[in-house]
Amino acid sequence: MTKWVYNFSANEADGNRSMKALLGGKGANLAEMCSLGLPVPAGFTVTTEACLDFDKQDKTINPEIRKQVESALIKVEAETGKKFGDDKNPLLFSVRSGAQASMPGMMDTVLNLGMNDESVQALAKLTGNERFAWDSYRRFIQMYANVVMGFNVSMLESTLEDLKEARGAKEDTELTASDWRELVSVYKNIILQETGESFPVKPLEQLWAAIAAVFGSWNNQRAIKYREINEIPHDWGTAVNVQSMVFGNMGEDSGTGVCFTRDPSTGEKLFFGEYLMNAQGEDVVAGIRTPAPINDPSKNESNKSLKTLREVQPDTYQNLVDIYQKLEIHYKDMQDIEFTIERGELYILQTRNGKRTAAAAIKIAADLVSEGILSEKEALLRVDPEDLNQLLHPRLDPEAEKIILTSGLPASPGAASGIITFTSEIAGIRATAGEKVILVRKETSPEDIAGMVASQGILTARGGMTSHAAVVARGMGKPCVAGCSDIEINYEKCTVKIGKEVFKDGDSLTIDGGSGEVMKGVVPTIAARLSDEFSTFMKWADQYRKLGIRTNADNPEDAQVALRFGAEGIGLCRTEHMFFEPERILAVREMIFAQNRRDREKALATILPFQKEDFLGIYKVMGNRPVNIRLLDPPLHEFLPHAAEEKSELAEHLGVDLDEVEQRIEKLHEFNPMLGHRGCRLAITYPEIYMMQVRAIIEAAIVAKNDGLNPKIEIMVPLVSEARELSFLVKRSEALIKSLLQSDKGSSIELDYKIGTMIELPRAAITAAEVAKSADFFSFGTNDLTQTTYGLSRDDAGKFLPEYLGNGIYAEDPFVSLDQSGVGFLVAHAVKEGRSTNKSMHMGICGEHGGDPRSVEFCHSNGLDYVSCSPFRVPIARLAAAQAALKFD
Amino acid sequence: MTKWVYNFSANEADGNRSMKALLGGKGANLAEMCSLGLPVPAGFTVTTEACLDFDKQDKTINPEIRKQVESALIKVEAETGKKFGDDKNPLLFSVRSGAQASMPGMMDTVLNLGMNDESVQALAKLTGNERFAWDSYRRFIQMYANVVMGFNVSMLESTLEDLKEARGAKEDTELTASDWRELVSVYKNIILQETGESFPVKPLEQLWAAIAAVFGSWNNQRAIKYREINEIPHDWGTAVNVQSMVFGNMGEDSGTGVCFTRDPSTGEKLFFGEYLMNAQGEDVVAGIRTPAPINDPSKNESNKSLKTLREVQPDTYQNLVDIYQKLEIHYKDMQDIEFTIERGELYILQTRNGKRTAAAAIKIAADLVSEGILSEKEALLRVDPEDLNQLLHPRLDPEAEKIILTSGLPASPGAASGIITFTSEIAGIRATAGEKVILVRKETSPEDIAGMVASQGILTARGGMTSHAAVVARGMGKPCVAGCSDIEINYEKCTVKIGKEVFKDGDSLTIDGGSGEVMKGVVPTIAARLSDEFSTFMKWADQYRKLGIRTNADNPEDAQVALRFGAEGIGLCRTEHMFFEPERILAVREMIFAQNRRDREKALATILPFQKEDFLGIYKVMGNRPVNIRLLDPPLHEFLPHAAEEKSELAEHLGVDLDEVEQRIEKLHEFNPMLGHRGCRLAITYPEIYMMQVRAIIEAAIVAKNDGLNPKIEIMVPLVSEARELSFLVKRSEALIKSLLQSDKGSSIELDYKIGTMIELPRAAITAAEVAKSADFFSFGTNDLTQTTYGLSRDDAGKFLPEYLGNGIYAEDPFVSLDQSGVGFLVAHAVKEGRSTNKSMHMGICGEHGGDPRSVEFCHSNGLDYVSCSPFRVPIARLAAAQAALKFD
Repeated sequence: MTKWVYNFSANEADGNRSMKALLGGKGANLAEMCSLGLPVPAGFTVTTEACLDFDKQDKTINPEIRKQVESALIKVEAETGKKFGDDKNPLLFSVRSGAQASMPGMMDTVLNLGMNDESVQALAKLTGNERFAWDSYRRFIQMYANVVMGFNVSMLESTLEDLKEARGAKEDTELTASDWRELVSVYKNIILQETGESFPVKPLEQLWAAIAAVFGSWNNQRAIKYREINEIPHDWGTAVNVQSMVFGNMGEDSGTGVCFTRDPSTGEKLFFGEYLMNAQGEDVVAGIRTPAPINDPSKNESNKSLKTLREVQPDTYQNLVDIYQKLEIHYKDMQDIEFTIERGELYILQTRNGKRTAAAAIKIAADLVSEGILSEKEALLRVDPEDLNQLLHPRLDPEAEKIILTSGLPASPGAASGIITFTSEIAGIRATAGEKVILVRKETSPEDIAGMVASQGILTARGGMTSHAAVVARGMGKPCVAGCSDIEINYEKCTVKIGKEVFKDGDSLTIDGGSGEVMKGVVPTIAARLSDEFSTFMKWADQYRKLGIRTNADNPEDAQVALRFGAEGIGLCRTEHMFFEPERILAVREMIFAQNRRDREKALATILPFQKEDFLGIYKVMGNRPVNIRLLDPPLHEFLPHAAEEKSELAEHLGVDLDEVEQRIEKLHEFNPMLGHRGCRLAITYPEIYMMQVRAIIEAAIVAKNDGLNPKIEIMVPLVSEARELSFLVKRSEALIKSLLQSDKGSSIELDYKIGTMIELPRAAITAAEVAKSADFFSFGTNDLTQTTYGLSRDDAGKFLPEYLGNGIYAEDPFVSLDQSGVGFLVAHAVKEGRSTNKSMHMGICGEHGGDPRSVEFCHSNGLDYVSCSPFRVPIARLAAAQAALKFD
Repeated sequence: MTKWVYNFSANEADGNRSMKALLGGKGANLAEMCSLGLPVPAGFTVTTEACLDFDKQDKTINPEIRKQVESALIKVEAETGKKFGDDKNPLLFSVRSGAQASMPGMMDTVLNLGMNDESVQALAKLTGNERFAWDSYRRFIQMYANVVMGFNVSMLESTLEDLKEARGAKEDTELTASDWRELVSVYKNIILQETGESFPVKPLEQLWAAIAAVFGSWNNQRAIKYREINEIPHDWGTAVNVQSMVFGNMGEDSGTGVCFTRDPSTGEKLFFGEYLMNAQGEDVVAGIRTPAPINDPSKNESNKSLKTLREVQPDTYQNLVDIYQKLEIHYKDMQDIEFTIERGELYILQTRNGKRTAAAAIKIAADLVSEGILSEKEALLRVDPEDLNQLLHPRLDPEAEKIILTSGLPASPGAASGIITFTSEIAGIRATAGEKVILVRKETSPEDIAGMVASQGILTARGGMTSHAAVVARGMGKPCVAGCSDIEINYEKCTVKIGKEVFKDGDSLTIDGGSGEVMKGVVPTIAARLSDEFSTFMKWADQYRKLGIRTNADNPEDAQVALRFGAEGIGLCRTEHMFFEPERILAVREMIFAQNRRDREKALATILPFQKEDFLGIYKVMGNRPVNIRLLDPPLHEFLPHAAEEKSELAEHLGVDLDEVEQRIEKLHEFNPMLGHRGCRLAITYPEIYMMQVRAIIEAAIVAKNDGLNPKIEIMVPLVSEARELSFLVKRSEALIKSLLQSDKGSSIELDYKIGTMIELPRAAITAAEVAKSADFFSFGTNDLTQTTYGLSRDDAGKFLPEYLGNGIYAEDPFVSLDQSGVGFLVAHAVKEGRSTNKSMHMGICGEHGGDPRSVEFCHSNGLDYVSCSPFRVPIARLAAAQAALKFD
């Protein structure tokens, strides 16, 4: 029989942390914490399988699950000595979602479940705090109406505001028990009038509806959106954790808080957290009240005047310290812990591996190794390669002039500049139009996720270091300045007042999430400074990885950046950009307009010295590292002018009629240029183009050689679909190279060069055994290979790709992450076939996928020798390659 | 040790007919004939391997080959009792090319080799015919100078003309022995002056040079061109046949001729041939003198007054009859025999399977079966499926008005109309421009091959039924009227006078190669009449083939034609053409301009009844045969107007600004439409388009069903790259169909329908196991699959494909014959993978390759269920399928 429900309590637990898929992250951790003997309120977890069953059963909970929930309930009653729905010692529950992956704030939660007109009285009697009991009851009604009944609660909220006004009260805390009692009765009336249904008073009825609502919330819009952004499968489902309530709002000896075992921004080893007395958990996260620091290290500008938990409840604090140390060693990672103090009694509600910035991730991993808690290998597996992205991008130029307007909490490090934007919608629209945006909000909520994704950085007026904006921004690796109380936002007028200055929607700001500074306008940036921990960490990665890491670079500047990031060579140097330089483009066009080979060769001779300089510049930067140069790839018509003026200019230069220019352009037009007269096809018809390039490559190498360098040249022929294309061009190139290497004195210059091909068409991959016979290397051009394998033009797919991703027809964008079942099949086939006829063949991948961690893993598993990616993704590829080696070898 | 040289003589032979690859067709047949005891002049064959060796050795004959040739020479001397280079009884040789495949007239030949100032005297003495001896000598010098020395012989020819003028002679035969002797001396002087070399007098020197020249002629321009047209590999090489000369020009008791064992035009069983007395072989083929018929059945308008061989030399004729009967039974096929009579003695110089028209091929094969010589299976393998093409195309409408200008020999049947063109060059240019051309020549020579290929038909003024024009045209399946002595061609003025009328280059003519008639202008044609033998033959094919044969047809008319040709169903009915009809295109455009689903559905509702009619019309023709309908495939922008006027019209119709129309067109523009928003991608974004089509397909089928038909429907989803696209659309279609089949009375209508997909993208083929799970069938769209596998746009490839074929980078056009190593790999993979998850799956191929015999063979070997091709190629596919079954099962 399927076990749908798992009990947990401080004494024992049915589950453990390895059961995340079934119990969700929260449920598995609750069980694990119970096994460690931590003070966790008793409860039970309904499994993710039950969620999937719920969907299958047309949104009903099947009888077997109900039976198991009822048994679990009896156990909790025994554990706590309370009784669900009792009028003497009532048991109340929190009902929370908990999926395999953390999706903070995305799904629904109901607190205080089990309250009704009887239990409120019992609670008042038990706690001797009538006001607390009725406040809890009205909170429950409001939350249940919203989450379970789908009721629009603004009507309830305005009633509360009316009441406060009538009482002359500013804060909720000024209302009395009888005020809350009155409000409960008003709430129930409104709900009855608006929905035609009485508010449910039977606790079991409440429980079934709440469980169903949490299951249902797996498929609410914002949860789906969040999963898309974070690539979480839609078919995982969520578990439901039903846990006995403890109350942080039972008076000034109660409270609730969140803490991190290390600093999630910098990774520094210091216990760090915030708390609020007489409050429930959501008050901390929502960022409405400014929370207090738990200890001195947690103090900052906005909370430094508040008392620390250490001062207020030293025993509780010490208890918490003992627990966090136990947890960090147990989980071998930085923990994000939620706790509640009920009348001086500490309860741990949740622990999980804390979200952190990339810098923190690196530092924590490195520190845990020094502390002997982690091995290097474990440490390498702890950091998401994609997160390194944050570290590599530019930071503010310290020399630049800055007008600092104010500062807030340094909630997520990094510098960002952009146009001030106040709503998610506008942020999305602007980002689509290519604009950079800073999202400015009083506070953020899950509805703002899309806007945060679309922004360069986030600035909020309220909330602490663990507020929604701060946590989510760190997870996304976006700069965030939070709780900047000095700013006044007017959503209606779309303005923000900072100090005395008013900025409108459309003005620019710069924020530095590392310092918390907010600056006027766009402040210039310089390259990132890489920490010592980063270097250490990347050295470990280099030590374990098997794949070589190269970069795609077309000029000395990019090559230089890539070297700094650890590139071991150039995997793709495109030559076409060099043709576009203003001083060459006319010669290129002359070449295109030539009527015969002689004229073409004449025009090419003008370009030759430029190309030689291009290559020499790159060789000088790369020293004796390999440089893979791809011969001309785009169709010739890409080099022709489009503007009327340019056409006239060209006609004049060539001494022909404008008509003739127009006609030639017309003649070169292609219906599907992607599948047209380009790549090596150009060289089959006009071999002299490639021969000029080969000459430039080799002559530049000879100059480099004479300068004492030892360049390693790889000449790459693009767009081969048939082995004979390659053998034809290799034969001609070899002959030319042989003649070039013949020195004046008759001896031959030694040069380390290879000639190979890009595998970027399905047929080349399929017939790789034949192609390999004339190739020294293969480089998989997975961009074009994806286009042809799918029959999908990247330039045109934008119109329907979002729909394909939205309805799950494509699991992910195949241009971002290598499609392993289709394109990957061809790569694997080509590797095997290619090596069958040419054992010593060197193989790599260029194209965007070379910097995508999952694709790097694929390359490792399929025996490639290296990956090549854009300079800024080199460290990501290095780490991904190390992780692949650790996972698969 | 390699055997490079093979002897043959009437008594014995080293080789046999199975050795064509090594000895060439001619050499193998000479050896075979010798084994049959036929009177073949003795000689030897130097192998094709020696030719390849010659190329490898930098155009020299290696010493071992020379040694073997010298030994073979001694054997021939012994056999004939003559001696090479002797001044008493000299042995003379013909030196001829002979490749594995017949390449008539493409390579070089030297006759009378071994003549010099001594042997000419000996020959004169031996034959008592001094004139013949000197004539042979000067022929030899002329031919040797041309072929071996590469000398431009027009200078020699004009000397001959001068001499004839000086002597007042019209014909060569009027010149005397001393005239010829004088000419020999003049020839030798000219050669010495022009080349600086004496004409070689040593016979062995002549032999080595002649063998080298023949080997070299394998790579002359016209031979290469011929191989390209006939798809003969360039690496076969040619053998050289060195055979002792016999002389048809030793006087009036000597002669030479060509005969066919059956009529090569009609296939009728009658011995058929032509001869010339006192002539050498090339005089018959060249068509300069009108040859005489060998017997009464060989008589025609132009030769009926001449004496038959049967009358002139009855014994020789009887001898020839005995031999031809022996040969036909031995080779089990119609033979093309060359013979020479030397002073009443018959020699067989060559026999080979004769070229014939398709009609003759069918009749001969059928007759040989009735005669018990061939089995049905053997007969099926004898006909090239591609040749059936000739039979299926239209013939002249007998009801049409015709102005018959004249008539010539019915040299190759079929009717053709076109513009009169006098040169190969112009014919080629016009054909490229899409014009139809009739090539009009006095006579044709190998230089005219390209022009003949480019023409619809050939008309010559000279030459008989075995002239170059006649033989080549029959081989090509082109209509030809030959030896039309009534026409006067003026090449300079580009005119042809027929009777009294003068036609210029550019005027139109019609020829009927079956009747020999030449008609003015373009005469209308009607469908071909298929012979009884054709029906019988195709029935045999149907009996042995395993593949089903379907047709690609978009309308009832095409479907009707295909049924007549034996189609068993429709394999591809494209629906987009239906969208272009004038009365629908506006609704289609409305649909494209719709801003929301409701408006789109409204526009689609207008198209629905038309589509229903389209489908019903096709169902009615096809009865209970399967009809495969492909849902809309092209991108929507293909339906938008291009002309300014049409755009304005559309703007008016839609009630919007012209600007808006322009903008929408701009927005729908794609960089690579082939890889864009088309096929099922349209239906993922706008499912209502396919749902309208599915509705039309099913509603039409219900109407057909009510009319007593039992349509078999196959609904085909195009351009699937990912299994989920198909499952998404299948689910929606099934739901719609289910609702449509629900009759008013609540019961469900039974309908035979399937939903499947086209496999036309590499990824669909690779992931076929997954795709097959929601498909009832696969149809391989090998056009698009070829485009994406090669990364090659068919619309754009025209610019470089000729170069690719010309230099052998592509062995053949992949759009014509399925690329088995690349595209074929994907097809084979998809068949295997598809059946692994869906055993009962039906699979076929649509796309042009379905009618290409080699591709059909591939489909058979890879376990497809059917091929589908254009209506006119259905019989070709039927025969190709039968041949595949006979060859591979």
